[in-house]
Amino acid sequence: MAGGGGTRFWPEGRQARPKQFLPLSSEQTLLQETAARCGGLIPPDRQWVVTNARYAAETQHELPDLPVAHILSEPIGRNTAPCIGLAALELLRVDANAVMLVLPADHAIRPPEKFVSAVQSGLKILHQQPESLVLFGAPPAYPATGFGYIEQGAALEAELPGYAVKSFHEKPDRVRATEFMATGRHLWNCGIFLWRAAQILALLQEFQPELYAGLQKIEPALGSAGYDEVLAREFPLLPAVSIDKGVIERAGQVAVLPAPFEWADIGTWQALGQFLGTDAQGNTLLGAHCVVDTEDCFIRTNQGHMVATIGLKNCVIVHTPDATLVARKDDEDGLRKLVRLLEEQGYGRFL
Amino acid sequence: MAGGGGTRFWPEGRQARPKQFLPLSSEQTLLQETAARCGGLIPPDRQWVVTNARYAAETQHELPDLPVAHILSEPIGRNTAPCIGLAALELLRVDANAVMLVLPADHAIRPPEKFVSAVQSGLKILHQQPESLVLFGAPPAYPATGFGYIEQGAALEAELPGYAVKSFHEKPDRVRATEFMATGRHLWNCGIFLWRAAQILALLQEFQPELYAGLQKIEPALGSAGYDEVLAREFPLLPAVSIDKGVIERAGQVAVLPAPFEWADIGTWQALGQFLGTDAQGNTLLGAHCVVDTEDCFIRTNQGHMVATIGLKNCVIVHTPDATLVARKDDEDGLRKLVRLLEEQGYGRFL
Repeated sequence: MAGGGGTRFWPEGRQARPKQFLPLSSEQTLLQETAARCGGLIPPDRQWVVTNARYAAETQHELPDLPVAHILSEPIGRNTAPCIGLAALELLRVDANAVMLVLPADHAIRPPEKFVSAVQSGLKILHQQPESLVLFGAPPAYPATGFGYIEQGAALEAELPGYAVKSFHEKPDRVRATEFMATGRHLWNCGIFLWRAAQILALLQEFQPELYAGLQKIEPALGSAGYDEVLAREFPLLPAVSIDKGVIERAGQVAVLPAPFEWADIGTWQALGQFLGTDAQGNTLLGAHCVVDTEDCFIRTNQGHMVATIGLKNCVIVHTPDATLVARKDDEDGLRKLVRLLEEQGYGRFL
Repeated sequence: MAGGGGTRFWPEGRQARPKQFLPLSSEQTLLQETAARCGGLIPPDRQWVVTNARYAAETQHELPDLPVAHILSEPIGRNTAPCIGLAALELLRVDANAVMLVLPADHAIRPPEKFVSAVQSGLKILHQQPESLVLFGAPPAYPATGFGYIEQGAALEAELPGYAVKSFHEKPDRVRATEFMATGRHLWNCGIFLWRAAQILALLQEFQPELYAGLQKIEPALGSAGYDEVLAREFPLLPAVSIDKGVIERAGQVAVLPAPFEWADIGTWQALGQFLGTDAQGNTLLGAHCVVDTEDCFIRTNQGHMVATIGLKNCVIVHTPDATLVARKDDEDGLRKLVRLLEEQGYGRFL
């Protein structure tokens, strides 16, 4: 799933280049990292990317080994359930027994080997319980208020890894998040799913009949010359519902695997600094830099551009060829204000 | 006088492009502004620029109307007395009665009309007192510790503007500077001089005989094919003494004209902000910018590069194509440290 928009990583992130197309956690973009992470298990010709139509070219450019027909373009975003439903239809055309691994393309995960072994554990569950929905939950590293939580229940039967899911929780407040951390049973919901394509469609039919009916109108056109026209007409009419609320939280057989990997849905430059780590002065310094009396700063520059600082604390500095951001680290709301202001002041070309 | 070096305005100022070659107070460089300011009174073919040999090409480029032969290249800087002595010799070749207006090329002065009228007042003094040295003193705008002061004494005789000079004072400490401001008699020494070329040479002969003797060795070569060779041999041997200490403070007949113009020897980005003025939030914003919750900042960018800030106070941000500085405003010593560190870390190419 690589269809999201937004400019939370401005000035590097732009409307035409949202988070999944940025090289945030390595030299590769998050989309490329996501594809590479699965590569050992799922070769490119068994990978599909669902994205917004306007990002199709960038997706093709970044994943040259992906068959072009495996880029599924949504005319508009309708949340995750329609996206996943459409992908499930495509997979079933190839393989009636297809197993689907569903991943957001804009998360950071390390190391990839541990991710692969977690998916393999999930496959064991599916092998014995083909009707299961398998989720992945990361043990919380801190009392995050920005992620959903999964409460794990009883362990699965004898031979199987993982747990039944006891409950789901929306993004909690600080107090609740601290309680969750203390239980040892609450996991961050990674938004990564493993299930049989036929099973998720069956559950969509059960819990989201309107959405399922819409998908049934698209299904006959798959692979035909009229597909684009049918999709453009029908897809926008699908109910915009998330797979979590719409299906997973209602399904009977849901398992969660505690993630053996480090996971982060990095949402801000500040959070990227935390994920990448800091030096003894609390700084994360990427690219050519020279700092004097500088602490707890995140600096990112590239193409050899020098960023030099004197006497700075708690700042984010991001340099790109046409725009530079200098911001206090703790102003979480500032970037939204800034993006609005750029628009208002006629600087939309920088967005 | 346009020979000074230094990187106090890094990253815009570089070793190859010191302050006088930067467009700090307007679209023109300080050198161009200095030449233009005198232009109404002294046409380009009566202007001379003394600079370091390595800045000769830049000087010619910036002042295309200046005769090339009027760029006097010092092989090395030897302070102001040798520079002024050499220039005086050149002027006397053209006009035995030459009057010299000596100006640093890196000061900011406004408005130019008032500067011209001050020089005209100085010429009145020279007309009646041809042996005078005429100085210009700016009424202090604040208790500056970074400038020398001139104490004015008795008014000149009936018809003449200006005052006799009572005393000279080095850069004072804060307490002293505050006292100076209170007297109403102490003026900032602008470092701008008006005198007859023959007179300053006579005084050099009197007070700096060794320097004068050195100049006498150069004088016969002026305008000859062997000039460069003679200058390269003799100029570095001249005593490195300032015209203030070496001559002016010892001379008998020194007058000062209170400057009717605003004057500044801008020494830092912070000071440039003060000179240019601030908006209601205390910001000086030059170039494409967009600021959120930003106060008391100096931001300078050009070539359309956008600098955006969030939640910043008391910072200097200067963007250039290959380097960006972000610094606390009040860290006066930081830039020196930074320049040293850039050198140490192998980033000398940015200096």
